[in-house]
Amino acid sequence: MKRIAVYPGSFDPVTYGHVDIVRRATALFDHVIIAVTTNQGKPSTFPIDERLTMLRQALRGLPRVTVEAFEGLLVHYLQARKARIVIRGLRAISDFEYEFQMALMNRHMAPQVETVFLMPDERYTYLSSSLVKEIARLGGVVAAFVPRSVSPYLTRLKNP
Amino acid sequence: MKRIAVYPGSFDPVTYGHVDIVRRATALFDHVIIAVTTNQGKPSTFPIDERLTMLRQALRGLPRVTVEAFEGLLVHYLQARKARIVIRGLRAISDFEYEFQMALMNRHMAPQVETVFLMPDERYTYLSSSLVKEIARLGGVVAAFVPRSVSPYLTRLKNP
Amino acid sequence: MKRIAVYPGSFDPVTYGHVDIVRRATALFDHVIIAVTTNQGKPSTFPIDERLTMLRQALRGLPRVTVEAFEGLLVHYLQARKARIVIRGLRAISDFEYEFQMALMNRHMAPQVETVFLMPDERYTYLSSSLVKEIARLGGVVAAFVPRSVSPYLTRLKNP
Amino acid sequence: MKRIAVYPGSFDPVTYGHVDIVRRATALFDHVIIAVTTNQGKPSTFPIDERLTMLRQALRGLPRVTVEAFEGLLVHYLQARKARIVIRGLRAISDFEYEFQMALMNRHMAPQVETVFLMPDERYTYLSSSLVKEIARLGGVVAAFVPRSVSPYLTRLKNP
Amino acid sequence: MKRIAVYPGSFDPVTYGHVDIVRRATALFDHVIIAVTTNQGKPSTFPIDERLTMLRQALRGLPRVTVEAFEGLLVHYLQARKARIVIRGLRAISDFEYEFQMALMNRHMAPQVETVFLMPDERYTYLSSSLVKEIARLGGVVAAFVPRSVSPYLTRLKNP
Amino acid sequence: MKRIAVYPGSFDPVTYGHVDIVRRATALFDHVIIAVTTNQGKPSTFPIDERLTMLRQALRGLPRVTVEAFEGLLVHYLQARKARIVIRGLRAISDFEYEFQMALMNRHMAPQVETVFLMPDERYTYLSSSLVKEIARLGGVVAAFVPRSVSPYLTRLKNP
Repeated sequence: MKRIAVYPGSFDPVTYGHVDIVRRATALFDHVIIAVTTNQGKPSTFPIDERLTMLRQALRGLPRVTVEAFEGLLVHYLQARKARIVIRGLRAISDFEYEFQMALMNRHMAPQVETVFLMPDERYTYLSSSLVKEIARLGGVVAAFVPRSVSPYLTRLKNP
Repeated sequence: MKRIAVYPGSFDPVTYGHVDIVRRATALFDHVIIAVTTNQGKPSTFPIDERLTMLRQALRGLPRVTVEAFEGLLVHYLQARKARIVIRGLRAISDFEYEFQMALMNRHMAPQVETVFLMPDERYTYLSSSLVKEIARLGGVVAAFVPRSVSPYLTRLKNP
Repeated sequence: MKRIAVYPGSFDPVTYGHVDIVRRATALFDHVIIAVTTNQGKPSTFPIDERLTMLRQALRGLPRVTVEAFEGLLVHYLQARKARIVIRGLRAISDFEYEFQMALMNRHMAPQVETVFLMPDERYTYLSSSLVKEIARLGGVVAAFVPRSVSPYLTRLKNP
Repeated sequence: MKRIAVYPGSFDPVTYGHVDIVRRATALFDHVIIAVTTNQGKPSTFPIDERLTMLRQALRGLPRVTVEAFEGLLVHYLQARKARIVIRGLRAISDFEYEFQMALMNRHMAPQVETVFLMPDERYTYLSSSLVKEIARLGGVVAAFVPRSVSPYLTRLKNP
Repeated sequence: MKRIAVYPGSFDPVTYGHVDIVRRATALFDHVIIAVTTNQGKPSTFPIDERLTMLRQALRGLPRVTVEAFEGLLVHYLQARKARIVIRGLRAISDFEYEFQMALMNRHMAPQVETVFLMPDERYTYLSSSLVKEIARLGGVVAAFVPRSVSPYLTRLKNP
Repeated sequence: MKRIAVYPGSFDPVTYGHVDIVRRATALFDHVIIAVTTNQGKPSTFPIDERLTMLRQALRGLPRVTVEAFEGLLVHYLQARKARIVIRGLRAISDFEYEFQMALMNRHMAPQVETVFLMPDERYTYLSSSLVKEIARLGGVVAAFVPRSVSPYLTRLKNP
């Protein structure tokens, strides 16, 4: 039986921290699906097609990885993909509490689903999509934080 | 002297976690007032009259419990109700810090007021009004998380 | 029905932080029993009779307060005293986790028991029996941290 | 070489907690610049000129202190001011994580910059600009939380 | 390639919380080795052979699970077993920090090793071997916390 | 007026994390004294003279740094050295709470003393003297964690 893991998130945009987690997940499971949320109501900085494009470019070359958009409840999506494993990165305490709340809620709705927490490289502890966008808006250089293909998208955010 | 405890919150909407805390509070104090905030500026998902209705239906049968709307500063409301006890549920570390900040601030403004922290059943650790609303919006089943009378209100939130 | 609250601990020795919590508890409940643990295996700095003496002197004048030694499991002791309320002070995050673990365990063994968490005055956030003993051992002045009757006991700890 | 420290923030408005940190910083470094962010996109309650005025009045009499507005990236501003020290107050765990993330990010962009964390007086642990504004909006008295010159500005926030 | 995961610990003694984590791990990986530390210097309550016996009885019937003693550094043991996955349960914030420190250290010594964090059932959040032993020493009933075969061992701990 | 900072600790033994903090402190203050505790009652792995030797070798070449043993209360030692600044490294939440408690206690005993918290390089987040000793005892290589002169001392700890 192939073990399929789903790594859900908004990836708005993908950072080196996300790429690091995907790489670790591919070493653990047979297939990794990056599931990008497209829920209405939660506005994103980049539209879904740009987020998918940035992810696909950033993960090019990684084997057994798929990038997909998804809408609705994560547990429904997992069922549709016959996946039972959710991947989440844990950087800090604040992550921890929110992630545990989500994982417990998902477990309640779908007991067969297991959430697996991975720890990114410590160099990426301080990285978050929102922090990177903030730096780009203020005119900072973001090349060290995001894959090369993402930088041009961030440059567009710069305040005039 | 009757000991009156006030359990303040937005209850937007009430969950089983809130009901659990109310039940515990009634075993400790003579009267428990559920004080629902109606402050302008903080928009709520459900209007105040719906939140009051949901709470009253959820707490029906619990003795020595009153449900009320209140506006303005909690310490002023406590004075008006001759209450000196505030009830708060503590689920997680993030609750802890915010709750302590609020409790210290209230103690500063009204030293005779004591905030009493109760721990909900561990089954409700992961429950929050906003998480339940998110699930309802995405089409999930919320019957396990909220009193029966609340479900129809949540169903209305579902994204088309 | 009288509401009896038990405040358990080793009180080795009592500090102003403990006294503050007792005072707050007496305003909330009809009777407060300070239950001092005498378990073998956990060595204490001060013998049980000295700890009881220090507590009784420190709490003299506080109404409806009893100081007692107890041995064995807290939930058994509560049953013997017909008490259903446990008082605990919460100062910091590290307290929080340990206290919640204990409270959940006690609730598991005796579901009718409720643990009530109180917040000490912020002046006592940094106070702990072990820190006070450390200062006394190193020759520091502890008068600001413990009731007057406790100081002579601490002075004996001073390193030669 | 003069040691210049920069204390950045939105100061919307300044509280006694901020004043306490500035005072501590002046005892450690030769010059302290209060750098008030004016970034577009992050709306503030008070306009930049009012925030500067409130700060200057609150810090009047403190030696070797300058109050300035700044726009853009903090590390760029530090370069322009030839400053290598950033001052931040740490009150709580939630501060801790965010502040560390920011400090690591800044260190990444400008390795010569050192962030120095100071602990405010424990009386100000519960103070935050947003909490003070919330109290003012609800009609509470804020004289104990903010310098005298700030109170009139807060009074204007009161809900009608 | 078979994916072998190692779940290291002292298991002094095994609790239902450990069994829950093992069960979750077997659903994720091809083989799970429970590696029981026998390091000198860290005294255990139960000798290594008793700890192994209790674990083997508790995990009987679980497929693809091995119970072994190990001595020395975990990363050396992993190499010897050709395993690249370490399993750890995360219950609370305090776990989180210690576990991350250990995982980062192990990653530093053996970069190919990945630590995977799993969340136990919320019913076991409050469970720890040391808490269970404390209850047994004080005469409490531990049947709800440990597998049936472990209870007799704990009963021997009871204080006379 | 020269600004003298004291960095107290047991340094049992010094790690690269400590060296990193000393280096940062020397950039901030005029003189940094490494104050090594020699308190009886707290047994150390390495005797005080070995800890001093290891520190002096590790910090050789760093300007304006002194290494000293001290006994008794830190605030007394600061007075004797006419120092008003205490340096502490903050790695994690658990550090945070203990460090704040100590800093508040010291401030209470000596209000003129300021504790300054610095953040080590993120590569050293996982480093602690006790973890390094544990690895050495189990036969691991510690060259990446401690200054070169410290390695031989650690090698002696290896379990036979």
